[in-house]
Order: sequence, then C-alpha cells, then structure tokens
Amino acid sequence: TAMPEDSVDKPNVVTCTAPVNIAVIKYWGKRNEELILPINSSLSVTLHQDQLKTTTTAATSRSFQEDRIWLNGKEEDITHPRLQSCLREIRRLARKRRNDGDPGVESTCLSHKVHICSVNNFPTAAGLASSAAGFACLVYTLARVFGVEGELSAIARQGSGSACRSMYGGFVQWIMGQQDDGKDSLAQQVAPETHWPELRILVLVASAERKPVGSTSGMQTSVQTSCLLKHRADSVVPGRMVEMIEAVQRKDFPAFAELTMKDSNQFHATCLDTYPPIFYLSSVSHQVINLVHRYNSHYGETRVAYTFDAGPNAVIFTLQQHVPEFVQVVQHFFPPETNGGQFIKGLQVAPAALSDELKQSIGLEPMSKGIRYMIYTKAGPGPYVVEDPAQHLLGSDGLPKKTV
Amino acid sequence: TAMPEDSVDKPNVVTCTAPVNIAVIKYWGKRNEELILPINSSLSVTLHQDQLKTTTTAATSRSFQEDRIWLNGKEEDITHPRLQSCLREIRRLARKRRNDGDPGVESTCLSHKVHICSVNNFPTAAGLASSAAGFACLVYTLARVFGVEGELSAIARQGSGSACRSMYGGFVQWIMGQQDDGKDSLAQQVAPETHWPELRILVLVASAERKPVGSTSGMQTSVQTSCLLKHRADSVVPGRMVEMIEAVQRKDFPAFAELTMKDSNQFHATCLDTYPPIFYLSSVSHQVINLVHRYNSHYGETRVAYTFDAGPNAVIFTLQQHVPEFVQVVQHFFPPETNGGQFIKGLQVAPAALSDELKQSIGLEPMSKGIRYMIYTKAGPGPYVVEDPAQHLLGSDGLPKKTV
Repeated sequence: TAMPEDSVDKPNVVTCTAPVNIAVIKYWGKRNEELILPINSSLSVTLHQDQLKTTTTAATSRSFQEDRIWLNGKEEDITHPRLQSCLREIRRLARKRRNDGDPGVESTCLSHKVHICSVNNFPTAAGLASSAAGFACLVYTLARVFGVEGELSAIARQGSGSACRSMYGGFVQWIMGQQDDGKDSLAQQVAPETHWPELRILVLVASAERKPVGSTSGMQTSVQTSCLLKHRADSVVPGRMVEMIEAVQRKDFPAFAELTMKDSNQFHATCLDTYPPIFYLSSVSHQVINLVHRYNSHYGETRVAYTFDAGPNAVIFTLQQHVPEFVQVVQHFFPPETNGGQFIKGLQVAPAALSDELKQSIGLEPMSKGIRYMIYTKAGPGPYVVEDPAQHLLGSDGLPKKTV
Repeated sequence: TAMPEDSVDKPNVVTCTAPVNIAVIKYWGKRNEELILPINSSLSVTLHQDQLKTTTTAATSRSFQEDRIWLNGKEEDITHPRLQSCLREIRRLARKRRNDGDPGVESTCLSHKVHICSVNNFPTAAGLASSAAGFACLVYTLARVFGVEGELSAIARQGSGSACRSMYGGFVQWIMGQQDDGKDSLAQQVAPETHWPELRILVLVASAERKPVGSTSGMQTSVQTSCLLKHRADSVVPGRMVEMIEAVQRKDFPAFAELTMKDSNQFHATCLDTYPPIFYLSSVSHQVINLVHRYNSHYGETRVAYTFDAGPNAVIFTLQQHVPEFVQVVQHFFPPETNGGQFIKGLQVAPAALSDELKQSIGLEPMSKGIRYMIYTKAGPGPYVVEDPAQHLLGSDGLPKKTV
C-alpha cells in the first residue's frame, strides 16, 4: 500500500500526561481477574497534575523492530499481560475505525511497532496509585498515536482497575457494571474539578518503602477469605455511592469527609478480616487518624478527612481555609527531619499560628520523623496531550532521551 | 429474730479464686446495656489459676455498718452499678431460697452488710480480662457467703459480660440467648480442661499501658457505627460457634487454630470499621501475627495460633510439643530487655535449639523489647473455695489484712 512520504522516515510521536486519583469509596476485589471487573463501584477525586502526574510518550515507526517500553528510565518487559491487554484493545479499536472508514484514523501506523516511554514525577509503589496514572496515561497516549477516540476507560481498566478513574478530571465514579464482558464497567465524571474550587488535598508521605502486600494479590486473598468483604461490596457500598455522589453535588464537606473516612476504615477492616490478615496502616497512619478525629472534635465539626490506600500514606481532604492551621498541626505532631521549606511540596501554604489550646486539646505525643514530607494539591483535570515537542520522552531515534 | 450466738460476733468469711478466660470466638457488642446481653454467642478457654487468678474474700457481720469493697489494695466505690447488680441478684436469690425454706441458706447474714476484698496476681487493665476473673470471683464468693447455689453465670454476666465464661473451667460457651430478661443468656461448659491435655497457652505481654479505649464504650460505639459488626454477629458467628465446638470436641488443633485467628482478626476488623475507629493492635501485635503465619507456613501446617482482646497482648495457643521451639522463636524476634529467666513466667519450658533455616524462613526484623515477658500456662478449672483461713484477705476486724 502507498504511504505518504513523511510517515516512512519520521516516527509518529505523541506525549500525554495523566493524573493520580484517590478513591473516597474504595475499590477492593475483582469478580473477573482478567478483565478487571470489580465487586463494587467506587468513586475518586482526580489530583492536580501540577503536583502528581505520569508523562508518557508513544511513537510508531516503520523502522521499529518490536514493541518496547521504558518505565522510569528502565526498559521493562512489554509482554506483561496487562500491557498487552491495553495494546491489543487500542489496536483493535483502531482497526475497527479504519474498517468503518473513519478518515481520522492514521491507518499507516497500524502495522507499525510502538515504542513507549513513561515517567512519574513521584516515587513508584509508594502507595500513591502510580499504576492508575501510568495505565491511564498509556491508554490515552496510545489512543492518540493510533488515532482512536471515544470511551477509553474500559481499556485503561484492563491495565489497572483504578486507572479507568484517572481518565477523567474532578470527581469520577467507576460504575462496576453487570455484563460478563465488562463493556458496562466504565468510569464516568460525576463533577469537574471546577465544581468544588475550595477543596484541598494534602498527601502525607509516611514512608517510601514498597508496600508489603501488592494490591493485586491482596484483593485476591480478600475476595477468597474475607466474610466481611462480600457484605461490604453487596450491601454497604451501593448506598455509600449514592450518598457520596450527593455529598459531592451539594459540596457538603462534612458528609463527604465522614463517608470518606468511614470507607477508608472499612476497606482496611476487610484487609484485617483477610486470612492471613493484611496490614497497610502503620503506627504513623494510626496517629494521623487519631490526630484528625481530635482536630475535628476540638472544633465540633468535621473540617478534615483522611483516606488510606494500600499503604501507610495518608491523603487528607480539607477546605482551603483550614489548610494553614492543619499543616501547622501536622508539623507539630510529626516534627520533620528536614526543614520546613522542604517538608511541604506543591501549592503554597500561608503561614499560620498554632494555639496552645488546640495542641493541648489534641494531646498526642509528637512522633518524630513519622512523616517524610507532604504534597499540597487540589482536584485537577484528566489526561491531556502535551503539544511542545521538546517534552517528548523519546528522541528522533525512537529511544529514550538521555535526560530521562 | 433470734440468732445463734457465734454469728453475732464472728464474721462469716469465705475466700474463693476464679480464673481468667480468653475468647476464641469473640464477644463484642451488647443488645442490652443494663442486663449485658450480647449480640452474638462466644466461646473461651479458661486459663489455669496457677498462673492467672483473682482471689476474693467476702465477709458478713452484724457489726458492719455498710457494704464496702477493696480492689487490689484500694477501697473502691461500692455503689458502682455493676457491683450493685451482682450484690442485688445474689441477695435476691438468697432471700428466694430462704423463703422457699431451703435449709442450706444462712439466713442470718441476709440482713448483714458485706465487706469484699479482691486481688489479682497479674496487672489490671493490661488487656488480660481482669474484669472477667474479678466479677466471676465476686459472684462465686458472694454466693458462698450468702449460701446460694446453682446457676450463677447469669449473675456474673451482669457484672462483666465475659465474666460468665470464667464461672467454668476448660472450654466454655456463652450462649447469647433470645429472651428480653436475659434468663437464657448463660455460660455452659463445652468440655472440661482435662479434655485436651496437650493444649498450651502463652500470654505475650506487649505492654502494661492502660488500653486506649475501654471495651464497654468501645463496643457501644461499634454497635452504633459499624456496618460490619451486625453482619458478623448475625451471619458469621453462628456458623463459627458450631465449627469451634466441633473443633474442640475433635481436638482438631489446625481447625481450632485457624478459627481462633480468623475470629480475632474479624473482631479487630469491626473495631477498625467503628467510627471513629478503634485500634487495639500495635506494631508489636502486627509483628506477632506475621511471625505466627510465617512459622506455620515454614512447617506447612498450623502449629500455633494467636488471639488478641481489647489490647496489644497476644495470647498464643499451641500444643505442648511445639512450645520449646516457639518460645525460642519469640525470644529471637523480640529480644527481651530482661534476662531469659525473668522473661518466661509460669510453667517450665524445656530448652530448645533454633535452626538458622527457621530464622531465615521467618525472615522478620527482630523488634527489641517489643514483648516485656510471657506467661506460659494451660487450660484450667473454674472458680473454687480456698479452705485455708490463712488465705483470707480480710482480717477478723473485717478490714483488709496489712499484707494485701
């Protein structure tokens, strides 16, 4: 078949970024391991990419001998089943569109091999859902390079379940769906990030150690052994999804915050009900939980909420007006190893005083170096294309640039 | 009314002892706070009184001006509602028997005030269910001093729920009952302590700190806020009670051990599902749990089980033959502060070697001073009367002896 001259020599290169998301109604447990179909719906907040993101470049070229992938500077095995699922599904969609005669599809590159290069601007496997941002970015970028448009969350889901929620900005639900083929197990935006501009997020990084039990095997064991998990999925989460969507729509912070804390606790409860039990919360996590409850109790209202994924890091939700004081509280009860400037990353925090009354009311023993640093961020948009070619992670030779 | 001469001057004195019990199917949550009626049945092993017991002396005398109580050397408020419940119910039974014309009842002392003195041979509120042994001993002793016999567990239950199980030796179930008046909420022996002579128990004392949330208020909050607790009580525990009774009757250690561990974990899971969440397990507890699973996994069979009540102390069940090695394992992974002699209290432990292979297979980082000491014991009998008058805790003046 005839090809335009330029597509023969120059690789077709696209770079995109995708966000991390933090579930406030947790996903834990699959009903289908291969298609990654969950046993309950979930809901998350997409974090702003100014602080946390994955950047991925995908390139296709007639000259590439095979599909290859580099993750955070290291070449990885492209035959990984979940990577293969995403690649296969994107190429299938592209073929379908070409066969349907869609003029937008760059049919030329369908027969080409692809090179993929991806980096996170935060530590991998630190409990910060790097696989969600990673697979969301992979699918979004592959879709662009192969000229595919439309609903992509079901493909991202097959890379990593929670990745489907990173395909949208703001407040996103992953509807579990009913079908065996998973076609109705999709992410959907509940509200954009602009809906609740006062909402703020603090990620308290307790430790960069790798988590003890990976979430894939952890949730598998939980599904097999926890009596409480099935009850949670069938009888608790459906009602909480309705309540959470309403709390978000009403911008009702106390309702949002309480549900968020309760659902985090229930997720970790099902981990403890797993046999053998799984512990993701550390003594630092326990101290953060106690701190938040005592802080709220001091004010007689729910000003701050915590949530924890499969690791000890806390993600704190609060409103902009409470951030300066709460940051001081965290610094007081977790005296940092580093100086204040490096302790807080991300958005600027205004200075604030901390009253002795509040300190005494919280009344916990300070835990030195319990928290390594915090990242101050807010809700943000979904994945997007980076237009500046200087940002490509792959050079014109199709290999990672040296600066990566 | 005329009284025999000697009862006028000499107090009527009785001293009894009662055991601690450790639940292997946990009690957590009341359906009636005042009568202490539980939301599920439970099952426990009574520990031997050679290692852990409460001793109580009760005395009645015409010369006593008021009811008084001394606990562990300190006079306490006798008007405490739960003490009053036990006193009232025992006196009611005694009056009933006298009115029924029972010749055994010492009717004389019914109008007398009572002095009570009680001591534990272990630290109070260290998560060792001291209230169970304490109320069991109180009720058993009061029954003797007032000449009451028969079913007493329903009275002990009104002092402290789990106290009803300390009224029997060996393996004891507390049947939750159905009636509103609690008359059918009773303890019952499943098997005597002689039934399973190889069974051994190690109490690993992690800390003598007072527990952060008391069990009474903790279970109240759990009943009010945990979605998972109700499911556990209604749908999980009934089946587990049947399985546990069968495991005890068959002396099937792996079945007994697995159910024990799963039920402990599920109890702590419901504490975590409570709002605000309750944490009884510490990082030491987590390490003990991991240690036990890795130890069992090394041998490819369940040789050791853990259970935790409302505190960080582990109670370990195993068979006699595995004790020497497992004690070495505990000492290796929790290097003690004190020397070996003081580290192990209770029954004699035979020396044993610890293979490098086993140490490597467990592969945990040793946690210095995580465990303060351990108490080696076994299943034991229920409460009994101490015949030696020298053991009375109250002197002939009706006041605590100076040695107490």
